[in-house]
Amino acid sequence: MRDVAIIGVGMIPFGRRDEDTLMDLLAWASLKALDDAGLGDKSVDAVYVANMGGGMIQRQTAIASSLVDRLSLLPAAAETIENGPASGASALKNGLLAVASGYYDTVLVVGGEKMREVTGWRATDFVATMTHPQAEYPYGITLPGMAGMFTRLYMEKYGVTREMLLAISLKNQEMGTLNPYAHVEMALDRAGIFDSRDAIVNNPTSADPLHLYDLCPVSDGAAAVVICPLDMAKKLTSKPPVLIAGFGQATDTHTLQEREDPTDLKAVTLAAQQAFERAKMKPSDIHVAELHDAFTILEIAESEHIGFFPKGQGGKAAVEGKTRLGGQLPINLSGGLKARGHPVGATGVAQVVDIVWQLRHELPKTRQVKNAQNGLTINFGGFGNNVLCFILRRVQD
Amino acid sequence: MRDVAIIGVGMIPFGRRDEDTLMDLLAWASLKALDDAGLGDKSVDAVYVANMGGGMIQRQTAIASSLVDRLSLLPAAAETIENGPASGASALKNGLLAVASGYYDTVLVVGGEKMREVTGWRATDFVATMTHPQAEYPYGITLPGMAGMFTRLYMEKYGVTREMLLAISLKNQEMGTLNPYAHVEMALDRAGIFDSRDAIVNNPTSADPLHLYDLCPVSDGAAAVVICPLDMAKKLTSKPPVLIAGFGQATDTHTLQEREDPTDLKAVTLAAQQAFERAKMKPSDIHVAELHDAFTILEIAESEHIGFFPKGQGGKAAVEGKTRLGGQLPINLSGGLKARGHPVGATGVAQVVDIVWQLRHELPKTRQVKNAQNGLTINFGGFGNNVLCFILRRVQD
Repeated sequence: MRDVAIIGVGMIPFGRRDEDTLMDLLAWASLKALDDAGLGDKSVDAVYVANMGGGMIQRQTAIASSLVDRLSLLPAAAETIENGPASGASALKNGLLAVASGYYDTVLVVGGEKMREVTGWRATDFVATMTHPQAEYPYGITLPGMAGMFTRLYMEKYGVTREMLLAISLKNQEMGTLNPYAHVEMALDRAGIFDSRDAIVNNPTSADPLHLYDLCPVSDGAAAVVICPLDMAKKLTSKPPVLIAGFGQATDTHTLQEREDPTDLKAVTLAAQQAFERAKMKPSDIHVAELHDAFTILEIAESEHIGFFPKGQGGKAAVEGKTRLGGQLPINLSGGLKARGHPVGATGVAQVVDIVWQLRHELPKTRQVKNAQNGLTINFGGFGNNVLCFILRRVQD
Repeated sequence: MRDVAIIGVGMIPFGRRDEDTLMDLLAWASLKALDDAGLGDKSVDAVYVANMGGGMIQRQTAIASSLVDRLSLLPAAAETIENGPASGASALKNGLLAVASGYYDTVLVVGGEKMREVTGWRATDFVATMTHPQAEYPYGITLPGMAGMFTRLYMEKYGVTREMLLAISLKNQEMGTLNPYAHVEMALDRAGIFDSRDAIVNNPTSADPLHLYDLCPVSDGAAAVVICPLDMAKKLTSKPPVLIAGFGQATDTHTLQEREDPTDLKAVTLAAQQAFERAKMKPSDIHVAELHDAFTILEIAESEHIGFFPKGQGGKAAVEGKTRLGGQLPINLSGGLKARGHPVGATGVAQVVDIVWQLRHELPKTRQVKNAQNGLTINFGGFGNNVLCFILRRVQD
């Protein structure tokens, strides 16, 4: 099994992209990543596209086949990977294993979604298609609804408070305003909202006990990475290659009600364990993480299930600033899903792009973890029924 | 790169499955393949699901995550692969590379589609979502429309006649009636049609010069395979393992109009060349093939582009019986897409299942190629803009 490195990354500003098609978003992010990898006019061997709503929202299928043509990458192999909100990490996983196998050398992985074509209840309903078709969907349960119930249970079991959730929300909104790729940055520019602490503290209830600012926005966006065997990386690019040091993936019951303890995110624990084992690392080796905070509670719960903090201590750690820049373990310095946005197919790839920027030490001081060497991502599918974890490592010169 | 073998296969009868859900079809085929592999209650490391219409037709996404739970395979990794009508082969490709990489040992690949929920123009429109969203779809072009124009060009360039197309149609309808898994078999039972030569010869025009019986039906169905490293295969199963000896995939322009010669299916040629190179074989080494005859013309054109027959000779070969059982190269002894049916996500996997049965010598005499050792499949995405080829080999005892 060959070691695989990331040699190029690209992201487009998330938010409302009314003027662009889904294919525009995917092509734009892809070209940035190919350019960043220094591949120029050279082709890649294969393309993996992460997307969930092309068929349902844009009524376009087989978009990977279309993208290779659009990018003049013919006759590169191509397919679309769909795994709900974990589509991005699933696409990278398949690219990773394809390069690791020796079959392909250079692979482009791009995730994108144009979700603003369905807003309000239609966006919630679109996302709810990943719930159980007999046991959940017909009863009207939504992902925010599940998150609300999960939060209530977590509060009762572990003493999580609204203050702790607010700490996540405020941190991620603040980091988002510093991130030119974040949806919230655009919202701030355009509408002048999201900019006061009061607005965040006093925002309306969405799915009790969660409020509006505990939820990620509905965003358009795309992100891409180029990978190759580690031993080819230094020949292809002058930038520091980033090794995919570890990877893990685990599934859990489709419905929450079937979990012995619904507050136990088993798939997060297992995926992280697998990734740490592969990377020969432990949680304390990680310098920066991008977690899947589609709801603020998830950043707290994931940080505990990964092992960054003991169970019940994640919220406290956030309040104490341990997950801020300069803290013990900075989390979601991109603004996370909460503020960067959550175009579902893009998210898992975008998380990896942000960690690569961290490990290359390319971010402005306001977001850069000093001398970061190891980073971690969690991409959370369904309500935790399919979770992927990557551990990335800066390759020493 | 590890050698990978198929150790279990399963298929459900294609046709109308009104009483079953999409998940029922996928689970049913999966359990058959797991049982065939002798895995019994043992889990697999990963599951790949091929499907195109879950979101659009059933309004269900992330179906791979749902399936692992349904099959009690938790916490196995899982994702859905979508590549239009080539989704099945794309899913198997990703399973193949994952096992080849050394990351997974046992992988279940299952393809399925429940298409009968959209019939008539709605089925045609569903399939047309894979056409170009600006250059083709808005102008009302359908896949049968493209096939009609392709057939006319092929007739003019290579002298293909209606008689040649009829030879394909009659052969595949006949083989379908011998195949208990074929859609046409069910139609015959239920409606008493498809059973006379006259009905096939005198069937109405669909997309001139193609008639109704030149087109595959709209089917429900599912098929599954279990793969593992070759060196584990003999420990896991007493049946003859089938090696995935070669694999190829290539893309072509999204629109037909951009191809220098629209009768030149470059992606078929390239995918087959790659597969032959990997397998260290040539066309004459193949004993049986399953080609993607969504339209009769495609069986002729593919048989030429692969190199089974010189350009312009595929139709003649069919008329002369060279592609029938006992002929030089038997093609689509399953009945092909034409008669087995074409539930899009299932097709690429079903083709492989049929070849495995051939190479294990498990079929009844009416369909079994005597002592078949090597088989080939072509799974054709879009209108030839994403094509995958597998070459399978019976492992000598």
